[in-house]
Amino acid sequence: MIVVMKQNVNEDRQNQLIDWLKGMGLGVHVSSGEYQTVLGLIGDTSKVDMDLIASLDIVESVKRVTETFKCCNRKFHPEDTVVSVGDVKIGGGNFAMIAGPCSVESEDQIVGIAKAVKAAGAVLLRGGAFKPRTSPYDFQGLKATGLELLKIARAETGLPIVTEIMSIADLPLFDDVDVLQVGARNMQNFDLLRELGRTNKPILLKRGLANTLKELLMSAEYIMASGNEQVILCERGIRTFSDYTRNTLDVSAVPMLHELSHLPVIVDPSHATGIARLVPPMAMAATAAGADGLIIEVHNDPMHALCDGAQSLKPDEFEKLAAKVNQLRGIL
Amino acid sequence: MIVVMKQNVNEDRQNQLIDWLKGMGLGVHVSSGEYQTVLGLIGDTSKVDMDLIASLDIVESVKRVTETFKCCNRKFHPEDTVVSVGDVKIGGGNFAMIAGPCSVESEDQIVGIAKAVKAAGAVLLRGGAFKPRTSPYDFQGLKATGLELLKIARAETGLPIVTEIMSIADLPLFDDVDVLQVGARNMQNFDLLRELGRTNKPILLKRGLANTLKELLMSAEYIMASGNEQVILCERGIRTFSDYTRNTLDVSAVPMLHELSHLPVIVDPSHATGIARLVPPMAMAATAAGADGLIIEVHNDPMHALCDGAQSLKPDEFEKLAAKVNQLRGIL
Amino acid sequence: MIVVMKQNVNEDRQNQLIDWLKGMGLGVHVSSGEYQTVLGLIGDTSKVDMDLIASLDIVESVKRVTETFKCCNRKFHPEDTVVSVGDVKIGGGNFAMIAGPCSVESEDQIVGIAKAVKAAGAVLLRGGAFKPRTSPYDFQGLKATGLELLKIARAETGLPIVTEIMSIADLPLFDDVDVLQVGARNMQNFDLLRELGRTNKPILLKRGLANTLKELLMSAEYIMASGNEQVILCERGIRTFSDYTRNTLDVSAVPMLHELSHLPVIVDPSHATGIARLVPPMAMAATAAGADGLIIEVHNDPMHALCDGAQSLKPDEFEKLAAKVNQLRGIL
Amino acid sequence: MIVVMKQNVNEDRQNQLIDWLKGMGLGVHVSSGEYQTVLGLIGDTSKVDMDLIASLDIVESVKRVTETFKCCNRKFHPEDTVVSVGDVKIGGGNFAMIAGPCSVESEDQIVGIAKAVKAAGAVLLRGGAFKPRTSPYDFQGLKATGLELLKIARAETGLPIVTEIMSIADLPLFDDVDVLQVGARNMQNFDLLRELGRTNKPILLKRGLANTLKELLMSAEYIMASGNEQVILCERGIRTFSDYTRNTLDVSAVPMLHELSHLPVIVDPSHATGIARLVPPMAMAATAAGADGLIIEVHNDPMHALCDGAQSLKPDEFEKLAAKVNQLRGIL
Repeated sequence: MIVVMKQNVNEDRQNQLIDWLKGMGLGVHVSSGEYQTVLGLIGDTSKVDMDLIASLDIVESVKRVTETFKCCNRKFHPEDTVVSVGDVKIGGGNFAMIAGPCSVESEDQIVGIAKAVKAAGAVLLRGGAFKPRTSPYDFQGLKATGLELLKIARAETGLPIVTEIMSIADLPLFDDVDVLQVGARNMQNFDLLRELGRTNKPILLKRGLANTLKELLMSAEYIMASGNEQVILCERGIRTFSDYTRNTLDVSAVPMLHELSHLPVIVDPSHATGIARLVPPMAMAATAAGADGLIIEVHNDPMHALCDGAQSLKPDEFEKLAAKVNQLRGIL
Repeated sequence: MIVVMKQNVNEDRQNQLIDWLKGMGLGVHVSSGEYQTVLGLIGDTSKVDMDLIASLDIVESVKRVTETFKCCNRKFHPEDTVVSVGDVKIGGGNFAMIAGPCSVESEDQIVGIAKAVKAAGAVLLRGGAFKPRTSPYDFQGLKATGLELLKIARAETGLPIVTEIMSIADLPLFDDVDVLQVGARNMQNFDLLRELGRTNKPILLKRGLANTLKELLMSAEYIMASGNEQVILCERGIRTFSDYTRNTLDVSAVPMLHELSHLPVIVDPSHATGIARLVPPMAMAATAAGADGLIIEVHNDPMHALCDGAQSLKPDEFEKLAAKVNQLRGIL
Repeated sequence: MIVVMKQNVNEDRQNQLIDWLKGMGLGVHVSSGEYQTVLGLIGDTSKVDMDLIASLDIVESVKRVTETFKCCNRKFHPEDTVVSVGDVKIGGGNFAMIAGPCSVESEDQIVGIAKAVKAAGAVLLRGGAFKPRTSPYDFQGLKATGLELLKIARAETGLPIVTEIMSIADLPLFDDVDVLQVGARNMQNFDLLRELGRTNKPILLKRGLANTLKELLMSAEYIMASGNEQVILCERGIRTFSDYTRNTLDVSAVPMLHELSHLPVIVDPSHATGIARLVPPMAMAATAAGADGLIIEVHNDPMHALCDGAQSLKPDEFEKLAAKVNQLRGIL
Repeated sequence: MIVVMKQNVNEDRQNQLIDWLKGMGLGVHVSSGEYQTVLGLIGDTSKVDMDLIASLDIVESVKRVTETFKCCNRKFHPEDTVVSVGDVKIGGGNFAMIAGPCSVESEDQIVGIAKAVKAAGAVLLRGGAFKPRTSPYDFQGLKATGLELLKIARAETGLPIVTEIMSIADLPLFDDVDVLQVGARNMQNFDLLRELGRTNKPILLKRGLANTLKELLMSAEYIMASGNEQVILCERGIRTFSDYTRNTLDVSAVPMLHELSHLPVIVDPSHATGIARLVPPMAMAATAAGADGLIIEVHNDPMHALCDGAQSLKPDEFEKLAAKVNQLRGIL
């Protein structure tokens, strides 16, 4: 950690600070330049409150030179992590196409879509049973029943299932689910993350609406520090001033996360844009940027079939897209 | 709800949509202009999936004309809600100064600060026992012990206590806490909100980092729809591109929330700026804009006392600020 | 234009508004629903001040149903515009690779890079002569001399040149430049746009740091309404809270702009990310999303060659990327 | 400037960098810690390309420890600058209330409003003659005629006039204008700024929609470095995700700019919110935060008088607000 002192600082006060830092067990290397003095802190600085030091009136600024994330840091684990779900592998060159409806609605619906997306090349089935909704008056999902229907679809198709968990209290219901998803709104629900770190299931962790890449990695760190290293990161669009799409897909997160971390990174173009006709170009863009997989909404109910779904593709559109993505994967 | 159709829409498809809407029990009023047709939906449109309709290729746009929030909506409840905590009242002309340390650290610390802030005019004591931290390696708070220390400070000073709850599982520990705080990161932890709606305690609900005012009100709605109408809204800074302050305090949220809702609105200038020397001007600004109270970090430990705390005021700075705020309240 | 009235509006005041609207030559179609009255305005509403009407205390909201952009609107011009620069075509299936240094520095430099990027497949040469810099103390470009050096590079390679114009006063100097670029900071310098609309040169118009797609199209409209229809739109990253990259590349702007407008859309991955090693994945992503071209910074000076340029590729990196982009174009 | 090297850097490459830096005339102080080496650069680092160094693959990060703004920096000029406009003073404890219509429309209108705002306590008259409009089809202002009408209003009331200049070419028309305003969209129109620096008139410089405080100060620096030190900074709302107000007023910019710079700082609550009924609370908030003045839209035309103007106050509302602001100023 580097502490840059202000100009013309009172020496007594500077020495007070140095003593206090040494009292925390740190080595302090003082380097005096023409204009300013810089303190280099040596030792375990992970417990040092950077904001507090930065706030001292004798301090100009503080810079941490060692990252605070360890388990997910590529520096300490250079090889790609490969997450395994049954026979499916994600990361380290393995690309996973995940597809399914926004919400599980009925056995016919989920089994129908599962068969369709499997035929088109999906290797995992997604579907919401517990739904986080902005309004308490909106449909909150079929909950336990929805989970049972997902298992039926799995039995019929062999596709492992991915579905969102919103609360620790529901964890026993998810015993037989293959991949647990943490939604964007729960990315910093630290108690939930810690508890998921105690399971032995792969976790699909979505980036929050306005969270930095570092915050996403620190949330992965919560899971991993509790003992579960099977984490899949997911970029799903961030909140910006831009108003044509629901969110702004931050495609650059894919190569940047790959550089910072060894964890696999997938992209959700459906939630990122909220517009079905933008899903194929954004899925292609994410793949071209190096994503390890895609998670895409596909529907088959009559009203949706009548038209474009808000953000869901029809099975035949998904099939076309999956073929295109495969072709693109071939040249990367 | 107003549905604006695209130009030159196929009539059969338009009729299909109208029939489908009528099938949901809605009245449909068709108004054909020179360029475009507009459908006015009459009846309970709260269940209608606006995004789905907007996504139809025959639809230009959809506009909801009735708000989806009801319990917290000023239209349906024109008088200000006054939240009572013991003898303290918040809202409807009652201004509450809430103060205390970021974290509860020891009995001496919390009792010392409690006495100091009471003397300076605070009517409620804040202090973190369960701390949401970005990193799993940072101090997570004294937890149950911290709550016991807060109660000691309450016993010594008579100040009711406000402290953050992060998980439903911890609820029994908060039985004897006066006001439960929901942090910005949990603003859309819907299971937690619903459960807090089943308690009979006032809830201090902080706005999320990147949440709109409507989303904040919908989260209040989760609590209120479960039966608890004692909700205090709190603006605490939003995430923007601006990089000098930790967050950007959205002062306009105060009059805007007062217009939309009858709930009291307080402001947290400490977290909004992250810089102690900006707390007094921002506290004054929030008061001038009509806030029903302030929640301010105050410290008294030696290292902080040595200097400006990152975002905490010293007790004497808080005392000066409280006097200034009172003077300002006098002329509003 | 749709005007949604508030509930229980005083009828006299509503009639005053209707009369005022009719006085502006508009037809007004009144549609009264159970809850609310909606006015449909018919006629030329482009002169109506939407904000003023929205601000009336009897009005709930106002919605424009016809776009205010006309010249660049795909609705009124369904075929793709193809911009021609000598033999080079951009748009309508024609993909243009534009490359060159950030700044023109010397004849050797610009001619050297021009030859290198031409060999690698670039069809236009970019290079800054007039440089917009945040600080008045930073290098402002070689100006007129830089333009002369660009022309020498064009003579040596046959590549048409693209360079930024910052001020109307400089226009005579750009007489022999092939494509005039408007930088992000000048996207809403309306006097400049209008004047460029009076030239007969293709204009490369960059999206501003925090401008919506509609604002970008309205700026294109300034140029086109003045008589110049040769406009190329350029997405170059927007300003968000995300802090790992300099800006956040909004790849979804590509298909969205193609939907709204018939103008060609290119992407600048160098400025969007500010990090050379992110340029190739973002260039691939933009191409996969359907961009009509790329504008990429390439350098060859010794210090840059020693290392990664902040955002510039080395010629051999550009060559590899150009080949990869071509391969990708083949499967789209 | 502090350059933090990566861990385990090749020594030859590090020495190459050090030699290159020394070749630029800088002193280099090498400080080797346990984990990392830090270079302290001594001398005139204002010409050093920070981004280029940061991009070297042997460099972890670069930090500038001396600000790049000089003329407007409070460090080098501790006393408040007081800008004088005739007898009116702004800054250094002098508060200026500036008011007037959005656009100058007619002699009657501008003279009428000028008299009304003067009576209510305004000391400067604002009014747009050249209007920056997003759409080329919107009213662009009365231009030269508008300037003449402003001068008539000045002659009738004695109020100095403030009005926006959009282009260098118009400068001769502004010879007899008292304060030249640079709008948000032109904050980084560097040629315009430089030219205004060659005039001897006070410049009111508005913060851009998505510009940081540092960028605002660097734009002030353009004006000041050209010789004109009479700059007034103006916060007018920034672009964020928040959608109830047109922009988000960043009130914390007021104390922060006062800390960084000696220039006066005023606030425009009308453009910041776009909603007339939010102007009074935001004007009060800005004053409470320490603003040196306010610039407020006031109208008196019949349609506006019929109702709330989009963002303009009626003269009597302005009078009430001005009295309240004065009262607040009394207790600060």
